Amino acid sequence: MFDLLLENVLLKGRRADVAVHGSRFARVAPAGALAGEAARERLDGRRFLLRPPFYNTHTHHAMTLLRGIDDDCALMDWLQRCIWPREARLTPEAVAAGTRLAIVESLHGGCVAFNDMYFHQPAILQAAVEMGVRARVGLMFMDQVSSHIENEAALAMRGGLPETVGLTVAPHALYTTTPDLLRQCVRQAQALGLPLHIHAAETRAEAAIAKERFGFDSPVAYLDACGLLREGTILAHCCHVSGEDLARMAERGVVVAHCPQSNQKLASGVFPWAEAAKAGVRVTVGTDGAASNNSLSMIAETKAAALSAKLGAGAPDALKLGALDRAVTEDAAAALGFPHAGRIAEGADADFILVDMQTPPFAAGGDPDANFLYAGDSACVDTVACAGRILMRNRRIPGEAAILEAAFAAAQSLR
Amino acid sequence: MFDLLLENVLLKGRRADVAVHGSRFARVAPAGALAGEAARERLDGRRFLLRPPFYNTHTHHAMTLLRGIDDDCALMDWLQRCIWPREARLTPEAVAAGTRLAIVESLHGGCVAFNDMYFHQPAILQAAVEMGVRARVGLMFMDQVSSHIENEAALAMRGGLPETVGLTVAPHALYTTTPDLLRQCVRQAQALGLPLHIHAAETRAEAAIAKERFGFDSPVAYLDACGLLREGTILAHCCHVSGEDLARMAERGVVVAHCPQSNQKLASGVFPWAEAAKAGVRVTVGTDGAASNNSLSMIAETKAAALSAKLGAGAPDALKLGALDRAVTEDAAAALGFPHAGRIAEGADADFILVDMQTPPFAAGGDPDANFLYAGDSACVDTVACAGRILMRNRRIPGEAAILEAAFAAAQSLR
Repeated sequence: MFDLLLENVLLKGRRADVAVHGSRFARVAPAGALAGEAARERLDGRRFLLRPPFYNTHTHHAMTLLRGIDDDCALMDWLQRCIWPREARLTPEAVAAGTRLAIVESLHGGCVAFNDMYFHQPAILQAAVEMGVRARVGLMFMDQVSSHIENEAALAMRGGLPETVGLTVAPHALYTTTPDLLRQCVRQAQALGLPLHIHAAETRAEAAIAKERFGFDSPVAYLDACGLLREGTILAHCCHVSGEDLARMAERGVVVAHCPQSNQKLASGVFPWAEAAKAGVRVTVGTDGAASNNSLSMIAETKAAALSAKLGAGAPDALKLGALDRAVTEDAAAALGFPHAGRIAEGADADFILVDMQTPPFAAGGDPDANFLYAGDSACVDTVACAGRILMRNRRIPGEAAILEAAFAAAQSLR
Repeated sequence: MFDLLLENVLLKGRRADVAVHGSRFARVAPAGALAGEAARERLDGRRFLLRPPFYNTHTHHAMTLLRGIDDDCALMDWLQRCIWPREARLTPEAVAAGTRLAIVESLHGGCVAFNDMYFHQPAILQAAVEMGVRARVGLMFMDQVSSHIENEAALAMRGGLPETVGLTVAPHALYTTTPDLLRQCVRQAQALGLPLHIHAAETRAEAAIAKERFGFDSPVAYLDACGLLREGTILAHCCHVSGEDLARMAERGVVVAHCPQSNQKLASGVFPWAEAAKAGVRVTVGTDGAASNNSLSMIAETKAAALSAKLGAGAPDALKLGALDRAVTEDAAAALGFPHAGRIAEGADADFILVDMQTPPFAAGGDPDANFLYAGDSACVDTVACAGRILMRNRRIPGEAAILEAAFAAAQSLR
């Protein structure tokens, strides 16, 4: 007996029946082929496009609490006046509330996983587990801010976490760490068998620091010298990378978490996706935090990434839909340590979304996946499942109203 | 007696009561002040942000029928293989069906007006009138395609159109017209008292044609020499404009319809908003057609315009929310010939949207207008009204399902 049978959904241009058993896809068959099978629940899929969900590879989820506060300011003024004073008042409870809000928002946009870097990691882990989504939570390392106790508390939780939730070792950035601290992070990552996650080559200022403070031609060259460029290391942003950097990144097997909207909003620069892809670099997409984006919609972020790649390369065919789609699903899932997620296939993890095609972007036909990625928004996303569990259904998430209210209270507590 | 009373809505940071009488706002008062007034209908506004809607200043609405067909191709290949053969099969019925779909989609995104340039203008006018939205429909002029009969038919309808719907004189572009045809368009616009609407400085290829075929340093200089740069002329795109061009555009009082997502997707270039604003140029935003965007969401387009301006100027404070917001509401309404629309004020045209703040982007507080423009999508837009008439309520548009079905049939008829 299957746990769930999706009947007559549209999957890669064909009608299909898809069965879920436990946390995996048990069968993927032509429409009608599973009509005689028993299932605890059957879902009429006629109006739905079945797709893998998104996997967000760089965010600071609890920054939903800091959204919409004096946007459009110069970066340092904004950080000093709006963000840092509020972050100083953060509690584990506030971070949990902000993270839950971000998870709700992400689910509406069809995303089931996030790679986080923020304070009060135990609260983030707890929120992810409760909400049933996948997460990687960074043990944070910065010279100015000791989060030793929190990191230890997060590490202590490690044995009890489900397979869907895990850790990374996350030194914040080259400008908030010393070479010694970075090398120490690498050793810890090796010892614990965890991937690394760091902001890298985000701004011109960071590139200048790599040169002036550390004597390296680029942030990537410096991070490599510190041993950070390992298989699976996630480098967020990468706006300021040379051809040599890209070759090095490809050789080391690192993953880029490209955050186009944040990079545009803060005028940081542009990650050269087409050039990186040619060099063989693994590319994924992240929203960054809601204070600097300000959306957590991976649909919007994916489109922004596509447009940025085309404009940047000066060619509308610089990045094609298939590669774009893989980057934000299968490749991103693998980057977060879920190699069996991000695709609809027998034996794969049963992460999926049902996109409502009785909505304007799909009405006139055309490629449904293109319509979703280039013209869709959260209004199209009807159902979201992670590891076989339906987390949103008919655009509703259990407990959503209470989560929204709690986030408001938490945001007020920071003012 | 008021026709409609919006009670306790959030308006520019304060709670307000807003009354509509006929097609205008009759009263705007602090919350509670109109509680004793009689009204045909009262609407509890507690969960809503009241805002002016968007006005889309450049589109080809019926191209919804051509969305999602072989995206990501090189431009000429795509036009020749996918678009033109289908456009050759367009009928007035198909254009009406595609336009209605676009209007439905636009309403979901909070937009009540469109400035169109496409074939079968009488059908477009008819669709706009039926659906109750504002529109400017271009009389099309191209050397290769004679639309004389259609233009005459559209002109013959002019006397019977409501105030919300009107015409422009719309020569397609400099590369599809001769100087004589452009001058003839200018004379016709003057004689009829209509504004002009033209694609201008969209691509590098167009700039090269201005130089090589016509001997001018820039498309804008050439169009000015032909007399097109008049008060209120709408120039769509303007990616390739010099400082001299911008000064000339400001002096002539033309309006830019900035289409950032289309320009990025086709790798056309970037309109320099911050520089244009400094020069005093009037700027508005358009989606362009759904075949090259592929969304008609003015929320997404407005955010893309903001991000593009910041990245282009290299400064996060290059374009502030207030100016951005005015550009896509009040300024855009004026550009389309609706000088009393686009703001919530006594005596102004009663165009408005109600944004549902019980949604994730608004949950934690912060500036509601920033949350809408930088983090919202169509899932937040609950109610849309144009000239006092509610066109969408609780995210539902009367007749939507039939419009979606008709669009599908129309799109099939082009294949």
